[in-house]
Formats: sequence, C-alpha cells, structure tokens
Amino acid sequence: MTRRIRFNAFQMNAAGHQSPGLWTHPRDTSHRYTEAAYWTELAQLLEAARFDAIFLADVLGVYDVYQGSVDAALRGGVQVPLNDPLALVPLMAGATRHLGFGVTAALTYEHPYTFARRMSTLDHLSGGRVGWNIVTGYLDSAARNLGQERQLGHDERYDLADEYLEVVYKLWEHSWEDGAVVRDRAARIHTDPARVHPIRHAGKYYDVPGIHLSEPSPQRTPLLYQAGASSRGAAFAGKHAECTFVSGPSEDVVRKTVRQLRSAAAAAGRRPADLLVYAQALIVTGASEAEARAKYEDYRSHVDIEAALALLSGWTGVDFSRYPLDATICYIDSDAGRSALASFSAADPSRVWTVRAAAEFIGLGGRGPVFVGAPDQVADQLIAWQEETDVDGFNLAFALPLESMRDVAEYIVPELQRRGRYRREYDEGTLRHKLFRNGDRLPASHPGRLVRIDPAPLQSAA
Amino acid sequence: MTRRIRFNAFQMNAAGHQSPGLWTHPRDTSHRYTEAAYWTELAQLLEAARFDAIFLADVLGVYDVYQGSVDAALRGGVQVPLNDPLALVPLMAGATRHLGFGVTAALTYEHPYTFARRMSTLDHLSGGRVGWNIVTGYLDSAARNLGQERQLGHDERYDLADEYLEVVYKLWEHSWEDGAVVRDRAARIHTDPARVHPIRHAGKYYDVPGIHLSEPSPQRTPLLYQAGASSRGAAFAGKHAECTFVSGPSEDVVRKTVRQLRSAAAAAGRRPADLLVYAQALIVTGASEAEARAKYEDYRSHVDIEAALALLSGWTGVDFSRYPLDATICYIDSDAGRSALASFSAADPSRVWTVRAAAEFIGLGGRGPVFVGAPDQVADQLIAWQEETDVDGFNLAFALPLESMRDVAEYIVPELQRRGRYRREYDEGTLRHKLFRNGDRLPASHPGRLVRIDPAPLQSAA
Repeated sequence: MTRRIRFNAFQMNAAGHQSPGLWTHPRDTSHRYTEAAYWTELAQLLEAARFDAIFLADVLGVYDVYQGSVDAALRGGVQVPLNDPLALVPLMAGATRHLGFGVTAALTYEHPYTFARRMSTLDHLSGGRVGWNIVTGYLDSAARNLGQERQLGHDERYDLADEYLEVVYKLWEHSWEDGAVVRDRAARIHTDPARVHPIRHAGKYYDVPGIHLSEPSPQRTPLLYQAGASSRGAAFAGKHAECTFVSGPSEDVVRKTVRQLRSAAAAAGRRPADLLVYAQALIVTGASEAEARAKYEDYRSHVDIEAALALLSGWTGVDFSRYPLDATICYIDSDAGRSALASFSAADPSRVWTVRAAAEFIGLGGRGPVFVGAPDQVADQLIAWQEETDVDGFNLAFALPLESMRDVAEYIVPELQRRGRYRREYDEGTLRHKLFRNGDRLPASHPGRLVRIDPAPLQSAA
Repeated sequence: MTRRIRFNAFQMNAAGHQSPGLWTHPRDTSHRYTEAAYWTELAQLLEAARFDAIFLADVLGVYDVYQGSVDAALRGGVQVPLNDPLALVPLMAGATRHLGFGVTAALTYEHPYTFARRMSTLDHLSGGRVGWNIVTGYLDSAARNLGQERQLGHDERYDLADEYLEVVYKLWEHSWEDGAVVRDRAARIHTDPARVHPIRHAGKYYDVPGIHLSEPSPQRTPLLYQAGASSRGAAFAGKHAECTFVSGPSEDVVRKTVRQLRSAAAAAGRRPADLLVYAQALIVTGASEAEARAKYEDYRSHVDIEAALALLSGWTGVDFSRYPLDATICYIDSDAGRSALASFSAADPSRVWTVRAAAEFIGLGGRGPVFVGAPDQVADQLIAWQEETDVDGFNLAFALPLESMRDVAEYIVPELQRRGRYRREYDEGTLRHKLFRNGDRLPASHPGRLVRIDPAPLQSAA
C-alpha cells in the first residue's frame, strides 16, 4: 500500500513566528492575529485541505539574548507580541468539525491540577480534537518573570516532567471511571461517588490529593506531542509522545532523528508505528516552476537578518551581535547551539557557514527544508523525503501565513491526492482515532494508562 | 430620566451551578455544558435580549465540607464536574458581537505574568468584551490540590491581591505605550522598542522584571468585577472594581451593602457612579401569574435538600450533616456563615430557621430574591427593588439554564422596554464603553492607571 503523507500547519498566536521579516511583505496578513475571524478562516482553510491539525507554538518569554536586550526582537516582530495559544482552540473548534489542535504548554509554568482541567475543557469543547505539545522549559526570560532565577537544569526539567505527567495522567485517566457520570434524574444521582477517585499524589514536586474537577473528555488524555531533540528528550518522546516534530535541513539528519525516536519508542515497549513523526518544512509553490521560483526570491528579499539573528541567538544562547556578519561559525557552546551548527553543516557540508549565511538559512521556514517548485516537483520532493527519512508527514511552516497554506491547499494537496498519497476525507471520531484508527483512548500499553493511583486507605471515618 | 435596569446572566461551566437538584428536571439542559453549540446558543439568546454580559463563576475546588467528603456534591451534581470558564469566552465571542463576558479567576492560583497574557488574549479575540471577576481565594480543597496546606488567611489574601493587581496593572496599562506597535513595513520596524517598558516589579510576593508579552488589547485592563462581602472585601471593591455583585434576600440587606460599596468607592476617591452594582436574583415568569406560580412550584419540587446542604456547608465551612434537618440554626462560626445566617434572618425575621428551611431557601437561585409572577408583576418588583436598593441591575441566576433565560428574554425584557426601563440596542464599542460610555480604558483616576513602573536605571550597557 502506498504510504500517505500527512500535513500539520505550524503556527503561533503572534504577529511573527518563523520566517523573520516576512511580516513586511505586502501580502502578509499576520497583523490579523488578534482577530477571531482570522483564525476561523485559517482553520476552515486547513480543514478543507484535510490537514491533521494546526500546531500552535509558544514560548512564554522573549528573545533577549541578541545584544542582551529584547529590542531587536521587538523591532523585528520576532515572536513578540505573543498571545496565549490555548484561547484559539475553542474558537477554531467551534468553526470546524475535524481539524485537530496541537497546543504548546510548558509544564514548568502551570500547576498540573489547573492545567489538567484546562486541557479537559478544550477536549470537551472540541469533541476530542486537542493535542498537547509537552515542553519542559525554554527561555530563561520566561523563568525570570515567573519568579524563578532561571529555568531548571536540563535533566532536572525532565525529572519534573516525568512527575508532572504522572499527575496529569492520574487526573485524566484514573480519577473518573467510565460511567461514573450517571445522570439518573429519577434516582437523583448525577455522579456515582464510588466511581470517582482522589488521586492521592504525593511526590517530590507536587502534592495533589483530590479528584480531577472535569469529567472524562472524549480522549481523556489529549493527544501527546513532543519535540525534544536531545537524547533525554528522545527518551521522553519515546516513552510518552504519540506525535513528534523534528526539524533538520537534510534527509540524512532527519532520517537519523526518526530512527532514534522510533528506537526510543521501541525501548519503551511501544511499537515504532505508535509514534507519528512530522518533519518541519516550508513549501513554496505556484502554477509553474517559474512562478514558484519568483515567489521564493520575492520572499527571500523580505528576510530580516537582524531579526533572524535575534531568533538564532535566543535558540542557541549565543549573542550573535558580538560577531561580524562574515565571521565563520566554528563552535556554539550549548546543546541547542551544537544542534543548530550541525543543521547548518548538514544543509551544505561544503559551505563555510558565516553568521550572515546562518541568518539567511533560518530566515525562511526555520531549520527545515524549503521545497520550491511546481506542484508535481514539490510532490516528488515530499515523497522522496518521506521514503528517505521514514517520516509520516510534514509540519508546514509558512512564509506568509494564509498564502503559504492556500498554496498548499490549492496546488499540493490535489497533486498528492491524484497520486493516492493524501487522504480525501477525514475519518469520524477524535483526533487520536483519526490518526491511529484505534479508538479515542491512549493505547493500553501507554504509561498514561499504566500509572496507578494509590488504593484508598481504610475508609475515612466520615 | 428613568433609570434603566441591567441584566447579567449568572452561569458556570458545570453541570450544576446554584439551584441544586434542578438538573433532574425533565426540561433541564445543563448536561449539554460540554458542547460548544450549547454555549453559543446561550450567548446568542442573551445578546438578542441585550444582556450586559454572561458572568461565569468558578471555584477550582470541590464542596467537601458536608460529611467531610465530596460524595454528596458528586451525587447531587453540586458544581462538580466543573470545567475551565476561560475557554468559553473565545467560543461565545466568536458567535456574538456585543455580549460581555465576566470570567472568574482566583488570583492565588495562577501567576500574574501568565494570567495577564491570558486575559489580554481574550480581550483581543473578543474585541474588548472581557471582564475579570477578581476572587482572592475560596475553597480549602482547591488550595490543597495546588500544594498549599490551606488557603492564606483572609487579610493576607487581600495583601497578596493588592500586589497581584499592581503587577497586572503594570503589565496591562504601562508596559506598552499607545502606538508602540508601528508595523512600518518599509522601515522594517514592527514595534518601537523605546515605547515598550519592562515593568521591573520586585515585591513581597512577586518578581516580574520583564515586559508584557501581549500588545495592548482594546480595553487593556479587562473590565473589573468583584464580589467581596466582608469589610476588607468592600474596601477592595471600592478601590478596584468597576462592577460588583451582591446577594441578599431582602431590599434592606441589599440597600445596606450597596451603600457600603458606594461609600467605599467614594473613600477611594472614585465617584459612586463609577461602580455598577448587580444584585443576584432569580426570575420565574410566564404568560400569566398562574403559569409562573405553577412553574415555581414545579421547580421547587426538584430542589435536592442534601445537595443544597453540600453547597451551604461549603459556603459556610460548617458540616450541616451533623445536625438534624429540623435543628434551629442559631449561630455559624465563620464569616461566610454569619453572612448566610444574616441572609436567612433578613429573608424572614419572624421565622425560626431550621437546617431544612435554609436548604430550601438557597435551593432555588441561591441567596438572592426570587421574583415570581406575570411579566408586569415581575417588572414592578424589579423596578421597586432598584428604587429601594440603588442597584444598577440584576445578576440573574437560573432554575433551568436555557428556559430561565428564554423566559426573561421573552417576557421581561419586552415589558421593561415598553416602560423605557431597558435598552433596545447596544452601544458600539468595548464592554467598558458600553457600560460607562466613557471610552475603552480604565478612568484616569483608577488605581490601575495611577500605578507607576519604576523608571529605567541608567541605560544598560548593551
């Protein structure tokens, strides 16, 4: 059977996401991000194009490494101003029937008890179409504003993440039994108390003795996304994630990452196919190759180098304003920096990577590949990438938010459908069921199902 | 000029709010609270009836004082299961143009830095129609699940509240100057960094050095609601609130509270009219008095005494399961308890208040009056109440969520409009402007405008 290709849209509730500087393009619409109608329009476009989901990034902080200040990020509209992604879900869910919603929420920044209710609520209101991108921390600037001197160390973040997940799994999966909500009007029993359990969690980071406030939502646990690139991150993804995002500029890099993730899933006792992997990519297309090329050059001319360096400095922790634009990048002393540098080398090993070249490289579509061409050419590239790397689909960044997605909907989706490589209709059911065709719930072997709540102590003497 | 009457709808994102037991009524629809379409239907009904706003209560905990357990609350559907109220705002905002949204958020339970962004986002997406009901804490069960042994003491809660407000005011009102967002495509300046200020807040409870993540929303600070009944609560409301909710069963009680609130506003240097006061009430009406009376008796027959006692025990901190139903209530040793007892006495000073009588009293519409009758009779009562108590309007509880609001829309609104006591059309503009006709922003004399952020230290040597 021919393997299908899946699409996610990669977005952010902000005036600028990736592709720094593109907001200056005359056809750009990202200033409309504060309008409700903008998001419902985008959601309906993606649903008509049978995207799996719209994936909303978030950082809860600012890019202030470049020049030791937020100024360049503000000037360049680099992920600031930035609004809450969760608020977009009920809005877009009310305007669609099938589209999924992946929302980023960093778990060091909200208590699991309140967060669990927020996600259950979104899952209820969307009819089971919510996913959660588990982020364990990111910008020091976010930590400082939350009264923490800086974010926790990398490994401790993952320890906390493990416990955080244990708490929310207990709330989502084990506090309310199926059928606990009886709604027996005659007997005046709304909920059977014998089937609702306090989770009695007492851990290193969290104490949560009580019951979950929400009754079970269609998926109970939202679909779990993760994007960890480090080895600890891959182990975490292998254990917990149902969908992962990878970003790398070449088939070689992405193939290795995909293999590592599927091995991590296998090591955690799961089947490699229990994990869907989406590779970040940007598609620039049009009615002809010439039109696509012209569009690409036009987009490139709007990339803002300083804004790109503000983004790159935030990612890597290195203040690139301290180096001339033609300086060669030899070494970046941080996990994210080494990973970025590896990306540049992989994109073109023969090239000497200067600061300017790196900025230009991430300036359109971030660290993923850019597929440019007529519809059949782009379809060929996507299919080749999938065959070479074993990804399940692509997480599509944009150059211009509506235009890039409209082009994919108009040119690429029909081309892939003609080749039998893209679905024509959604399945019914929750987001998890649409993706895995195996019911609404986490698989029985998933750690969220396997965690147990402590049994009741001897009946409290009430 | 004849004074107009205002309506708010009093709701909760739950299967049961007040009126415990009424979910068992055959015409009840509250089981639909998890459906997006349910809330958009309700919002459109309220907008057609020109309500000021829908006001969403929240507790973030369970009623577990009765029998020392959550069982009775679960059995009776007493504010559990309970979903996040904030998620309803973008959904209902997308389906309406004018209706306001008052959302309850307890400030001890989320960090002001993240909360400020959540509210700015809702204000953006709703076009400036969001209000925030400031709650300083409520149920011990909520505090325990958030890793706090119990909630802070009453006065310390208000100290923390004062600082919390200082932080969010700095973020909402003072971090971004008007016009900071330039969006100059030719000059490639999205935001002028000189007009965005870090708030540099360093206080007893919170340190927030950075800038607000969101650009200014239409109202900047959401419309501020408060419902504090204690003297510290009234002082707090007098200082900060633009709208307050009061609940009392008699004109005497409510008149005194309104006078206290308006004095507190005056003491804080504000005009008494800067505060809109809504009194909780339930309206039971129909085409005729007989129909209304029959409906009232029908509703009463569905009140669940045990569920009402679970609610009353949670409010007062007294476990009423320890007393027989015919025991007389003489004294309740808590602020909320004394206030509840005062309510009972005020409702009928000549009556001996037993446990059962108290449960029946709060069983329909909580602690406010119940206006029963034909449309002209109810209109007479509302007008008399307003004249006697100086309230600006009513916060309408429901017996059955859709039916109670439909009855008000169908019978009471047209009757009041005929008498020139209820608006026929909304004003354009933000929620604040609709209510006060004085622009989108907090008044210049409001503490949120008066608070200052520390000036910049000598330019950081970047």
